[in-house]
Amino acid sequence: MMRSKVFSLVARAGSNRMMSTATKLTTVEVNDKTGIATLTMNRAPVNGLNLELLQDLKSSIDEIEGNKSRGLILTSSSSTIFSAGLDILEMYKPDKDRIRAFWTQLQDTWLALYGSSVPTAAAINGHSPAGGCLLATSCEYRVMVPNFTIGLNETQLGIVAPQWFMASFLSVLPQRDAERALNQGRMFTTEEALKVGLIDETANNKEEAIEKCVAFIGTFAKVNPLARSLTKQQFRAADLQQLQNGRKEDLEKFLFFVNQPAVQKGLGIYLEGLKKKAKKQ
Amino acid sequence: MMRSKVFSLVARAGSNRMMSTATKLTTVEVNDKTGIATLTMNRAPVNGLNLELLQDLKSSIDEIEGNKSRGLILTSSSSTIFSAGLDILEMYKPDKDRIRAFWTQLQDTWLALYGSSVPTAAAINGHSPAGGCLLATSCEYRVMVPNFTIGLNETQLGIVAPQWFMASFLSVLPQRDAERALNQGRMFTTEEALKVGLIDETANNKEEAIEKCVAFIGTFAKVNPLARSLTKQQFRAADLQQLQNGRKEDLEKFLFFVNQPAVQKGLGIYLEGLKKKAKKQ
Amino acid sequence: MMRSKVFSLVARAGSNRMMSTATKLTTVEVNDKTGIATLTMNRAPVNGLNLELLQDLKSSIDEIEGNKSRGLILTSSSSTIFSAGLDILEMYKPDKDRIRAFWTQLQDTWLALYGSSVPTAAAINGHSPAGGCLLATSCEYRVMVPNFTIGLNETQLGIVAPQWFMASFLSVLPQRDAERALNQGRMFTTEEALKVGLIDETANNKEEAIEKCVAFIGTFAKVNPLARSLTKQQFRAADLQQLQNGRKEDLEKFLFFVNQPAVQKGLGIYLEGLKKKAKKQ
Repeated sequence: MMRSKVFSLVARAGSNRMMSTATKLTTVEVNDKTGIATLTMNRAPVNGLNLELLQDLKSSIDEIEGNKSRGLILTSSSSTIFSAGLDILEMYKPDKDRIRAFWTQLQDTWLALYGSSVPTAAAINGHSPAGGCLLATSCEYRVMVPNFTIGLNETQLGIVAPQWFMASFLSVLPQRDAERALNQGRMFTTEEALKVGLIDETANNKEEAIEKCVAFIGTFAKVNPLARSLTKQQFRAADLQQLQNGRKEDLEKFLFFVNQPAVQKGLGIYLEGLKKKAKKQ
Repeated sequence: MMRSKVFSLVARAGSNRMMSTATKLTTVEVNDKTGIATLTMNRAPVNGLNLELLQDLKSSIDEIEGNKSRGLILTSSSSTIFSAGLDILEMYKPDKDRIRAFWTQLQDTWLALYGSSVPTAAAINGHSPAGGCLLATSCEYRVMVPNFTIGLNETQLGIVAPQWFMASFLSVLPQRDAERALNQGRMFTTEEALKVGLIDETANNKEEAIEKCVAFIGTFAKVNPLARSLTKQQFRAADLQQLQNGRKEDLEKFLFFVNQPAVQKGLGIYLEGLKKKAKKQ
Repeated sequence: MMRSKVFSLVARAGSNRMMSTATKLTTVEVNDKTGIATLTMNRAPVNGLNLELLQDLKSSIDEIEGNKSRGLILTSSSSTIFSAGLDILEMYKPDKDRIRAFWTQLQDTWLALYGSSVPTAAAINGHSPAGGCLLATSCEYRVMVPNFTIGLNETQLGIVAPQWFMASFLSVLPQRDAERALNQGRMFTTEEALKVGLIDETANNKEEAIEKCVAFIGTFAKVNPLARSLTKQQFRAADLQQLQNGRKEDLEKFLFFVNQPAVQKGLGIYLEGLKKKAKKQ
């Protein structure tokens, strides 16, 4: 499972030097002035969460945990998509072994991000449906660029967001709003997301979004990092334990559901739609 | 437990035909244009929730689950009372067997409504205290006509709303507001209920309330019904399981409490008050 | 553990007589007109919660439970500090037996206050960090005088607020706000606390704060006290049981953490800072 990495020391105009680590599908840049790591998803065209992107995300989170970064900012190299969510191709007519590895990796990546010991923030610089919204709501803070949408729209795709997607959503939204949005599969515009509390701030562009994430992480400047990390993990312990204690059942539930003929048919129709859309453009 | 039913096909002025099913105390009308079922409580004068009304409610919910309705709208045939809540006569000097059947039926009816697979909305066209508020907050959406009141006012009556009443209340209100209102036995006016989030919209009259419920149910038009239903039930699973796993204890707790001399005395005084009030009118 | 008490019947100007009970570090005054008890913390200079103040608080709460008071108002005899929280001297280079008694007493006092059968309100007439905020958020209502601060700032001190501190905090604040404030160790000004819901009202001074607490307790005038008390305890049962079932583990976790060299060092530095500050004045 080890993936080759490219290490490079990047000299930038201005006063900040960055230490940059790139795997195939993610890049980690640590600003040596602020000590904050930016984790960028680079899987063109839409950061579809396939097995490899999830693996790279997990190893990048681990790297940031290990390199004493003061915080983690999650963002996208695309100018229109933060992440389009789970890659449908992993679920449509799946290979038996690969789909198990895929879902298990998704669990691992969520456990690492939601339970991360460092402060986490998402600079949401594009659309963020389904799994994209899961990543964003697993962070502690969200800044979003206008004219995009965010939400757990699984019911619109004929699938069910698992219990731990709901936990991330509920860490951000009141119960009534969370349940209704989940049932509707509602996508919120940037403005709607701000109003309901699904995001914390808006920013005019990616750079400003990252600056605001940096400012949020700066609110922990006088806080003891170990005490902060133990506090966060204690606060999120029930959510994390629920998945940790039920990983196998969660996997089997997913496999059973995704292999239903009606679900496979729905995914097929959805993929046909995407192909036609692509041809037209 | 089977109750006789009257089936009738009702032709209505205008374009919509309704399929109507009436039990003694409830009516189900399915609009064949929208596919949405309206479930009306008809127990004069105040829709007091006695054993028979609870049975009819349960069988009407089951019917709506079974007839592929696109949604359920709960309302009242009274012009001033949605439901006055549990019928005190079931609890005052109770028959030993009947009170067990009564409470067990209340549990069953709540499990069916709160866990319903179809979208649910309440058109609250009158006062809605105690058990009336339980029914309303077990739905996913609430539209209320002005100049009425709603709330869990059990403490004002000297009784205790069980844990699952609290679960319904907490699915709608923030924890701080829910606890305070429960402790106070607070009745909210329509305007206050809107402000705190206990209802979602107001409407000038019953027809408009039903229209707004129809519009809410319409937000699920593009949603896969199976995925929606599984999502809702997963979201409400902990609340539902808590009662399912503790039904016997919940029944015994209720019986113990209701049979306390102080509680019986309180209910007696309350009934005296109702009788005097009725005579004056 | 029994502490000597001074009972005195105090005649006051005006129409109200007060029955007053003073232990060494707390005073209970019951207004015989309203039937409401005011519980005042008197440990100069900052109401640091040491073993003895916690014991006196617990015995005063028990007294109020027993004397049929209509409510409990918690306040401070200081004009600038409600309570500065846990007394650091109990935790720095601790005596092995005393620190066990201290933490066990803190658990007992919280269980008594958070689970109190009478209506509780805090008249917050001074700063209220850490354990001071715990006491305030364990009450059902909070009125605060301007120009002070309140919050669970444990992470700023390098320590971790235990799970039951979080439960009190979450009984008042939404999950997102609660987690962020805990991680930041954020202290809220009176105005910020009002905005986020951490307090319910502001008052110009202590007397007005107490009057507003009296008015809150008055909202229960028509409520059956037994039904109210059972309702509150059922609502808070999960939080209370979590500590009751895990008291020993909670104690051992605290002892392990507080005895870490890094934590002891941090507490030492903090105490040095307090001493220097005191000398300057």
